[in-house]
Amino acid sequence: MVDRRFFVNHGPFTANDLAAATGATLLNPVDGDRALADVAPLDRASATDVSFFDNSKYVDQFLNSAAGACFVRSKFADRAPSTMAVLVTEDPYRCYALAAQKFYPAPKPQPGISPHAHVHPTATIGADVSIGPGAIIGADVVLGDHSSIGPNAVIEAGVQIGNHSQIGGLTSISHAIIGNRVLIHRGVQIGQDGFGFALNREGHVKVPQLGRVVIEDDVEIGSNTTIDRGTGPDTYISEGTKIDNLVQIGHNVQIGKRAVIIAQCGISGSTRIGDGAVLAGQTGLAGHLKIGPGAKIAAKSGVMGDIPAGAAYGGIPAVPVVDWHRQTIALSRLIKTKRGTND
Amino acid sequence: MVDRRFFVNHGPFTANDLAAATGATLLNPVDGDRALADVAPLDRASATDVSFFDNSKYVDQFLNSAAGACFVRSKFADRAPSTMAVLVTEDPYRCYALAAQKFYPAPKPQPGISPHAHVHPTATIGADVSIGPGAIIGADVVLGDHSSIGPNAVIEAGVQIGNHSQIGGLTSISHAIIGNRVLIHRGVQIGQDGFGFALNREGHVKVPQLGRVVIEDDVEIGSNTTIDRGTGPDTYISEGTKIDNLVQIGHNVQIGKRAVIIAQCGISGSTRIGDGAVLAGQTGLAGHLKIGPGAKIAAKSGVMGDIPAGAAYGGIPAVPVVDWHRQTIALSRLIKTKRGTND
Amino acid sequence: MVDRRFFVNHGPFTANDLAAATGATLLNPVDGDRALADVAPLDRASATDVSFFDNSKYVDQFLNSAAGACFVRSKFADRAPSTMAVLVTEDPYRCYALAAQKFYPAPKPQPGISPHAHVHPTATIGADVSIGPGAIIGADVVLGDHSSIGPNAVIEAGVQIGNHSQIGGLTSISHAIIGNRVLIHRGVQIGQDGFGFALNREGHVKVPQLGRVVIEDDVEIGSNTTIDRGTGPDTYISEGTKIDNLVQIGHNVQIGKRAVIIAQCGISGSTRIGDGAVLAGQTGLAGHLKIGPGAKIAAKSGVMGDIPAGAAYGGIPAVPVVDWHRQTIALSRLIKTKRGTND
Repeated sequence: MVDRRFFVNHGPFTANDLAAATGATLLNPVDGDRALADVAPLDRASATDVSFFDNSKYVDQFLNSAAGACFVRSKFADRAPSTMAVLVTEDPYRCYALAAQKFYPAPKPQPGISPHAHVHPTATIGADVSIGPGAIIGADVVLGDHSSIGPNAVIEAGVQIGNHSQIGGLTSISHAIIGNRVLIHRGVQIGQDGFGFALNREGHVKVPQLGRVVIEDDVEIGSNTTIDRGTGPDTYISEGTKIDNLVQIGHNVQIGKRAVIIAQCGISGSTRIGDGAVLAGQTGLAGHLKIGPGAKIAAKSGVMGDIPAGAAYGGIPAVPVVDWHRQTIALSRLIKTKRGTND
Repeated sequence: MVDRRFFVNHGPFTANDLAAATGATLLNPVDGDRALADVAPLDRASATDVSFFDNSKYVDQFLNSAAGACFVRSKFADRAPSTMAVLVTEDPYRCYALAAQKFYPAPKPQPGISPHAHVHPTATIGADVSIGPGAIIGADVVLGDHSSIGPNAVIEAGVQIGNHSQIGGLTSISHAIIGNRVLIHRGVQIGQDGFGFALNREGHVKVPQLGRVVIEDDVEIGSNTTIDRGTGPDTYISEGTKIDNLVQIGHNVQIGKRAVIIAQCGISGSTRIGDGAVLAGQTGLAGHLKIGPGAKIAAKSGVMGDIPAGAAYGGIPAVPVVDWHRQTIALSRLIKTKRGTND
Repeated sequence: MVDRRFFVNHGPFTANDLAAATGATLLNPVDGDRALADVAPLDRASATDVSFFDNSKYVDQFLNSAAGACFVRSKFADRAPSTMAVLVTEDPYRCYALAAQKFYPAPKPQPGISPHAHVHPTATIGADVSIGPGAIIGADVVLGDHSSIGPNAVIEAGVQIGNHSQIGGLTSISHAIIGNRVLIHRGVQIGQDGFGFALNREGHVKVPQLGRVVIEDDVEIGSNTTIDRGTGPDTYISEGTKIDNLVQIGHNVQIGKRAVIIAQCGISGSTRIGDGAVLAGQTGLAGHLKIGPGAKIAAKSGVMGDIPAGAAYGGIPAVPVVDWHRQTIALSRLIKTKRGTND
């Protein structure tokens, strides 16, 4: 039950509607016209809610759920309560996400340019663009169709933003080329100088940072994250990558497709991260590393060397995750022994 | 001696005034009319300053202080210099804080709505509210009496803010219900989508985040901190909790009363923190944990499991703090042995 | 080859121009009039580019480079390709930085006060100051000559900013005195209350923070960094220090000259950092420590005690870096032994 001050429910939808929207198959076609009014977790769902069962840990909740419909893997389909319309899929959580998007589509900012925005006359503004009050759009900026710029955001000269991209309030962007359907949250700073100095006892000398930030389609970037522009090469974030809040991305970093970077990670200059890699929270990566595609790095790791494709690493300095766990166990045994010996 | 450009001293006050304001007891009533003009630490205080003695490490400073008055525990009261008006209390630092608040009350923003603010006509604005230039107040926002919104802050549609709460400049708030006497510093981002995706090789699917952020009375939140809204349940911060700068709080996190979260901590989704718990700086907590009331977690810890009430933990992964120290010692002995053997 | 939408090349310059601008010596005066049009790394430079050779790891790139000119140490000067104008210096990277600054000087904001800025009538505005749209300049603020305030920045009452200093958009500053040629990036929050409470079970009591932030000449501060003001003493950052993004600096911290603080470091209250110290990324320092001049602290360290001048430390808790590496090795041997024994 959402707070109606903040969310608008676009339902109800029939079980057939939800099957069509998600690609799931309705187990029993007779349920096709059943009306579903909302989404809910298994243990709180009622006869008008659609739910999902993805983790077998919750099988009891599934067996006892009052949900009117549920996304379920085929192997559990025949164990569903008789009151439940069963929507069969091998990816129940993904289907649930799509169904929830149907009930609660992300609100689109009202098209229109606020009279309190400041748009440079040389900027190119696409169709159905929304620009919030206090937003500042610099010279030669290009905003794609259906893009939106939040209140008090700052888009500096020459920046390009693609179609259907949304820039949060209080975010600033310079020296950047941004694709389509990119979602940048609030307080994000993109395109400032990287931290480049010729260090010197008499005074550090700033090295001009002559690259850009390139962000491909379908990237999402969390609040208060910072992304420095490249030194000459670009800082590059490939399509579909999701970055959480308060992340630091240094100059010339290259991130592959559909990577996941959790909150407060820091990626030092010129490091490359392969497609589909996952960095858990507060992880730090030294500069000039190669993290292979599909690598998984545990939270709070300190990575000081390359990581092969598909490998799981953890610790400071990071080692294969099994070794990290063994080190933890060895260390805990060490003090048990010491206690036995010394105490 | 404060910089008068930034601070206004509301004194002088008599020793009796300070006793009344803090609950301390004046040891010798004859000192009641003594005028105190300012606050100062023991070693720099003069005859017109009030100071405090809370940590016996500084007993020499206390014995030699020229302070005109001093908050002191009863057991030290008879050792005070004869020139000192002794204000007896079992909590000298707290009394000092209250006295300092009397000399330097937090400045209240001038009531009034800047002509350069943008307030939606459907917003409800209480009595004596201050709204700074460039601030944006969305539709159906409710601002309590004596609340203030800093310059260029963004309060999105439907947000409720209680009485006497202060929102810093350049902060944005959406999907949130905020209590009374809440102090939110600058650059804070509250209420954005949590980091919720159905991860998928062909493209991560966004899961609508249908909860809110609820912040109870007397909470303080530091600059550039980020607090994501809940997924359906709310992200919840209970009364009196103090959060420092650059902290990340994930969706559905619940924080109890009067907890203390130091700078750059990260709290992953759905973790619960009990009343009065203290998280030292740069600590990270995994998701779905329970941290008991009164638990204390050392700086830079990585917490991967539940922590019992009142326990002190530290390390990565976090263990009871005595074990952590033993591990540190064991490790340092290990290399001493190795040196003896190999070098 | 820079993106001309974002960067303006002020060249070409002759080899003599570059020698004069950087202090390097042209090996063969006959090359003095050679025209250089751009900067480039050794492996991509053409006959009209100037490059640098600083790291002997890249000697092959140097020997085979097509660069029209190159900054080189004297000991390598006679091995340069015959097509290369050799600019001899013992600090090639610094000279390269200066040459790059000549080609691409940092763009200066156009002097002038935006009609959409809000400048208090009591503020003192120097010559050739730039104030962006939406910027807010409070009462009694002093802005030095040639200083600039970015769009939507907030400079609160009484703040002083020196000559040629630049404040990024969406940054807020209060209770601060800022020197000359200071560069503060975007989203930085300076001068808010430090995290000072008298902790108490019935409710934490706020301790008034009566100091300032003082920032000397030639300091640079990265995006979304937070710097709290002092409690009575000041928070103090000395000349030439460079601070990266998302750093937290607590109340009363004192940082010496030309220190380097990399991204996401956290420095707790009252800690002092000596001249020229280097803190690598995500390092945390406890409060009330003394870090000696020239100390170097490895990334992700947790520093819990003082560090002597010139020492290199690492680990959690931080120890001399050689010991930290030995601990890492000892721990990795430990699990090898265990494997041999147990598996």
